[in-house]
Amino acid sequence: MSNDSTTSTNTTLQLLDLTIDNITKNVKLVNSQTPNTRLKFLMEKLVDYLHNYVRETRPTIEEFNETMKFLAECGHMCTNVRQEFVLLSDILGVSVLVDALNNPKPTNATESTVLGPFYTDDAQDVANGDSIASPGKGEICLVLATIKDTKGNPIEGAKIDVWETDSNGRYDNQYDERDRPDMRGRLTSNKNGEFFFKCVKPVSYPISSDGPAGKLLETLHRPARRPAHIHFRIYAPNSTYDDLVTALYIRGDPYESNDAVFGVKKSLIVDVGKVEDASLAKKYDVNEQDWLIRYNFVLTTRDETQALLTMPTAD
Amino acid sequence: MSNDSTTSTNTTLQLLDLTIDNITKNVKLVNSQTPNTRLKFLMEKLVDYLHNYVRETRPTIEEFNETMKFLAECGHMCTNVRQEFVLLSDILGVSVLVDALNNPKPTNATESTVLGPFYTDDAQDVANGDSIASPGKGEICLVLATIKDTKGNPIEGAKIDVWETDSNGRYDNQYDERDRPDMRGRLTSNKNGEFFFKCVKPVSYPISSDGPAGKLLETLHRPARRPAHIHFRIYAPNSTYDDLVTALYIRGDPYESNDAVFGVKKSLIVDVGKVEDASLAKKYDVNEQDWLIRYNFVLTTRDETQALLTMPTAD
Repeated sequence: MSNDSTTSTNTTLQLLDLTIDNITKNVKLVNSQTPNTRLKFLMEKLVDYLHNYVRETRPTIEEFNETMKFLAECGHMCTNVRQEFVLLSDILGVSVLVDALNNPKPTNATESTVLGPFYTDDAQDVANGDSIASPGKGEICLVLATIKDTKGNPIEGAKIDVWETDSNGRYDNQYDERDRPDMRGRLTSNKNGEFFFKCVKPVSYPISSDGPAGKLLETLHRPARRPAHIHFRIYAPNSTYDDLVTALYIRGDPYESNDAVFGVKKSLIVDVGKVEDASLAKKYDVNEQDWLIRYNFVLTTRDETQALLTMPTAD
Repeated sequence: MSNDSTTSTNTTLQLLDLTIDNITKNVKLVNSQTPNTRLKFLMEKLVDYLHNYVRETRPTIEEFNETMKFLAECGHMCTNVRQEFVLLSDILGVSVLVDALNNPKPTNATESTVLGPFYTDDAQDVANGDSIASPGKGEICLVLATIKDTKGNPIEGAKIDVWETDSNGRYDNQYDERDRPDMRGRLTSNKNGEFFFKCVKPVSYPISSDGPAGKLLETLHRPARRPAHIHFRIYAPNSTYDDLVTALYIRGDPYESNDAVFGVKKSLIVDVGKVEDASLAKKYDVNEQDWLIRYNFVLTTRDETQALLTMPTAD
């Protein structure tokens, strides 16, 4: 066969009599009609990877049908306050990977981690010192935090979404009767870069098996828990800095090294102490035996991130 | 580094401080705890392909979020009579590929093709000669068919699910007010292997853009139509034969070589003629100007398929 005829074969769209051998090329060709270069690239690679997965694993019709059913069930679990596909992505390690690829950090900056499926955008504003949780949701924990840049300058005016479970290990949006946000709030850093609030001492909790992602964990005989943590989503006050999605994990949690969604990083593990200081207790209106977490968040500038994103990797 | 320490590194589960470089290995390791060998293989390859796709395409957080939203929307479109993930699989060529891998056919057997998203399992029994469509759904078409094996023996007692759109190009389950199946029915082959019925002359139709799969076709600037066809799902009467999922396409349809779901095969394209014979018209209780399709379906035995499935491929 001459090179010419090969070239012709490779670029002529054939959408009739598609086979194991010619389907991939032709699906990519028909998709390539979009003028959107990025979409074209994403679709081309998607079709390559999907088809190669299918060719290598040769799913039976029954397995294919089960997969279609599984995906539909994931979709049926999704609401504006429950994201089952995000949970699925989390337990497959895809979320951690996407996060890592997008958010390289210099060594002295706070690492990012998975957003998780329970973030909602309806958290109410909370003044520094107030509680993000309504009374009776668990043991009281004071969080004293700062936001600075990698040079130690305080960052004022950052908005910080904070969310966590109650002491039963359930987010507000895991209760059917949720009528307003709870165990979540939006703080603002002051001129010293400080923000502080009361919350519930976090507990470890099971990945809910009420949906297909949790059921998959069971089928895989995988531990289905997350260690105790508090989520933070920090919106930088201006375009100098990057936003930060992260979480703080409680040292000593039995699931610290066995998180079902792969989110824990050593640099994000914190000690939970007691307030144990009368003046501190008075200043923040808590009791001396209440719990205390301190953490200094360090944001990167966009320039710092960009430099890392474009830096050649070791291999 | 010695071989021993390399081995140890490769088999020790690390679920803390996961990075671009170690996430894949560790997700595969934690999934490998299932005793189900097939599931373990499917998950191992899924994680490999998914992660490699993500590493190669580096989706932004916004693209990731859009994907999660897209998948949730697909799920929300799924009902017991509408399968959006099947449609998505169809337009990505995955359905054709899975079908081809599972259903190799000897040259004289009827080829299989995609089931499509509009199959339902509630079709009512229809006697040979009756219509699968209620009156007024389109131009009347008589279908005269036989089911035989590759040696020409008639196959009696096969159940045949048939389904198609009305003359507006819509399946019964694309109407909100569907209260019972229409344009679909379940036939049974007689002792000569014959089955015959009246239906609506099929028309080409647009892939509905009321859901995310149809919208994706639009975004990709892809033709979003299927050529005129009738679906057939043949259940073999005994375990000697394979079931067959296929369709007949109308010769000359402008979308014959541009099917949005890649389902057309030359061997499945049929001529639509007119009855044009008074005795035939009388025998089947139709008019001489009604449409006529004839087709002889040929089923494979399970042994024939098995021999092809285990035969080494050319490459």
